[in-house]
Amino acid sequence: MPHFLSTSDADFETRFTALLGAKREDSPDVDDAVAGIIADVRARGDAALIELTAKFDRLELTPESLAFTREEVDAHCANVPPAEKQALETAAQRIRAYHVRQMPEDAFWTDPDGASLGWRWTAVSAAGLYVPGGLASYPSSVLMNAIPAKVAGVERLAIAVPTPDGKVNPLVLMAARLAGVDEIYRIGGAQAIAALAYGTESVAPVDKITGPGNAYVAAAKRRVFGKVGIDMIAGPSEILVIADADNDPDWLALDLLSQAEHDESAQSILITDSPALAKAVAAAVEKRLETLERREIAGASWRENGAVITVSDLDEAAALSNRIAPEHLEICTAAPLELSQKCQHAGAIFLGGWTPEAIGDYVGGPNHVLPTARSARFSSGLSVMDFLKRTTLAQMTPAALKAIGPAAERLAISESLEAHGLSVRARLDKLNEG
Amino acid sequence: MPHFLSTSDADFETRFTALLGAKREDSPDVDDAVAGIIADVRARGDAALIELTAKFDRLELTPESLAFTREEVDAHCANVPPAEKQALETAAQRIRAYHVRQMPEDAFWTDPDGASLGWRWTAVSAAGLYVPGGLASYPSSVLMNAIPAKVAGVERLAIAVPTPDGKVNPLVLMAARLAGVDEIYRIGGAQAIAALAYGTESVAPVDKITGPGNAYVAAAKRRVFGKVGIDMIAGPSEILVIADADNDPDWLALDLLSQAEHDESAQSILITDSPALAKAVAAAVEKRLETLERREIAGASWRENGAVITVSDLDEAAALSNRIAPEHLEICTAAPLELSQKCQHAGAIFLGGWTPEAIGDYVGGPNHVLPTARSARFSSGLSVMDFLKRTTLAQMTPAALKAIGPAAERLAISESLEAHGLSVRARLDKLNEG
Repeated sequence: MPHFLSTSDADFETRFTALLGAKREDSPDVDDAVAGIIADVRARGDAALIELTAKFDRLELTPESLAFTREEVDAHCANVPPAEKQALETAAQRIRAYHVRQMPEDAFWTDPDGASLGWRWTAVSAAGLYVPGGLASYPSSVLMNAIPAKVAGVERLAIAVPTPDGKVNPLVLMAARLAGVDEIYRIGGAQAIAALAYGTESVAPVDKITGPGNAYVAAAKRRVFGKVGIDMIAGPSEILVIADADNDPDWLALDLLSQAEHDESAQSILITDSPALAKAVAAAVEKRLETLERREIAGASWRENGAVITVSDLDEAAALSNRIAPEHLEICTAAPLELSQKCQHAGAIFLGGWTPEAIGDYVGGPNHVLPTARSARFSSGLSVMDFLKRTTLAQMTPAALKAIGPAAERLAISESLEAHGLSVRARLDKLNEG
Repeated sequence: MPHFLSTSDADFETRFTALLGAKREDSPDVDDAVAGIIADVRARGDAALIELTAKFDRLELTPESLAFTREEVDAHCANVPPAEKQALETAAQRIRAYHVRQMPEDAFWTDPDGASLGWRWTAVSAAGLYVPGGLASYPSSVLMNAIPAKVAGVERLAIAVPTPDGKVNPLVLMAARLAGVDEIYRIGGAQAIAALAYGTESVAPVDKITGPGNAYVAAAKRRVFGKVGIDMIAGPSEILVIADADNDPDWLALDLLSQAEHDESAQSILITDSPALAKAVAAAVEKRLETLERREIAGASWRENGAVITVSDLDEAAALSNRIAPEHLEICTAAPLELSQKCQHAGAIFLGGWTPEAIGDYVGGPNHVLPTARSARFSSGLSVMDFLKRTTLAQMTPAALKAIGPAAERLAISESLEAHGLSVRARLDKLNEG
């Protein structure tokens, strides 16, 4: 049974706070092991990478076979059925069209004091994308990470994907090809992150690393942060569905289950102003759980972390949503856009009953890499901005320096930074001479 | 003596790589101590905060005196001389005018398939700004952190500033007032970061923490990252000056020294195509070092980390600049804007001889919180974006779902995520019925 709460219950606040604070994931402490692996790859380069891949992935590589060749990628792509290929193309085209619109503009202007100011956006030169192997090797995630990088203008985009026992998902390679990925390495785990961050004889280092991974990958990303940029450390996935009475309970049940089936630590929450819908959705979930392929995982997630919350009106639902700050928020009400304006803290919002969250996972266009674990309070999903950086620009004229230089000198002196003040003063003196 | 290099030297590449890789800062390992302090503040709240402040800052507080009252701030602000107040006002006005232009726009459009897509920017609800005490308690940094937060629309902005022995810099309080800061706490160190991240009885938690600090503060920020957002972890400061022959050597010497005087681990580099200027600037630095107040610090920085690099032409200078990825880049050449377009990796660029870097520290308008230690390769200076997050929006119509839903279903099946596919299929079936 999931958690059933109602804002009219006397103990609602206590139970809701407990739900918010519940730790859904045990993070094994692999930090020491990861530190050792990173040090090894830094010290011994390819040799360490090859040994570690033999050990963890049961795969014997050479410096030459660390990367897939163009011909190998061709051969795997030839195995992708046409329907899958076309679906990937549709997804890639739509994701690209959305992310192109995110490109920010440069600016340069002259202000009333005569100072020219502005900024310029440039792409990260080289980026690395981690793709998990095995079950969680999702071609959709390749598109979602690689396309924003290429739209931003990243010149060199490398993928690291472990291929345990030599097995690789051909759709992952096809997605990489469609997204314009430049290099694909058969490496995984902390050793792959170390190679991307520090480089080896055969893997040139990158400036930024993104993409999901297990506890080793996450710990390695934390450790190389600073040497390179990283994206967020993803936690277990969440969905919040806000719905009024006028919904098909089975549709909402499937939306909740499409989160729950990811992982036992995923969380699916329904908030509704209709006690009848609350009951009907809970029943529909149980019915679908009878036959769902991943019913073990989805059922455990729903029982442990799922919740059905009844509220007195939809404003109350929006207020609770802001406290949850969900990764995914589906709003199935009569006026979803209006209600969404009251939901400030969410990674992605899906508006109306015709927009199941799964559309956003694949072909909607917006990114599916989103802030989890309440971090939508302060962070955003992956975007082209993650592969760009901004350089600010400033140019003074003699007149501009005369106008604002004395204030800078005064503040420098008050901060006891004499050379700062003198660097302005020397120029002002020259102007006063002239 | 600083490092003298020339790209025409046989050993240039070796020496330049060594310069790039040199570790300028020892980071003491304070992580265990910090973990203990955070756990203590989480467990005991105000009581821990008050005990730790008595221990580290020799200041006895009560829950009521943790924060400055409005009257206390008034009284300190009354001690700020009019010239300093006016300089702070000039700086605040110019920083605000620059950052207002950074506000990104929301978007919402309908694409050819009938899908409505877009995004919406919203502010972080509550932010905390750390301000170091003692020597490095810079009012300019208060403006640079607080103004972007308020421009972004942060409703609640709290400052933590330690006041060892009860001493506070009145200019810091004046800067906080000018920037619109809502709460100012007399707390510092890891205990302040813990209080801002987790809250105590008297300090409400925030969603994002920014601002510089010592090794304890930096370690605490790393530890609370995830619970709250943080800005970058700042390393020692750097300046790169690219100059042609037509410059006053004394001006450039002062610009180099205005970085060097911050810290022995700061780095100042001159790159020039004029061997004569290289010599003249090095001589001018030595001359200024004879009398500079902070000559011990600035001299040590210049001798240990400073460098003068002679190149054959300015394109070579730009290429080296991209490898250095400097925090501050001053371009003192005949056509600085043109040359700046070849310098993709820099936190802030100062164009032309009338734009000393110190202008940017105080009154230029762009932010002075900038990426250090080569991180301009992948990150940007502080901006309003650091206090905003983006929620993506998607709304399908029945026709849009009919157009793109089958591709989503296909990809869901290929990823073995049955409920994802069913959540789309159930809706498509309804449409096909109709």
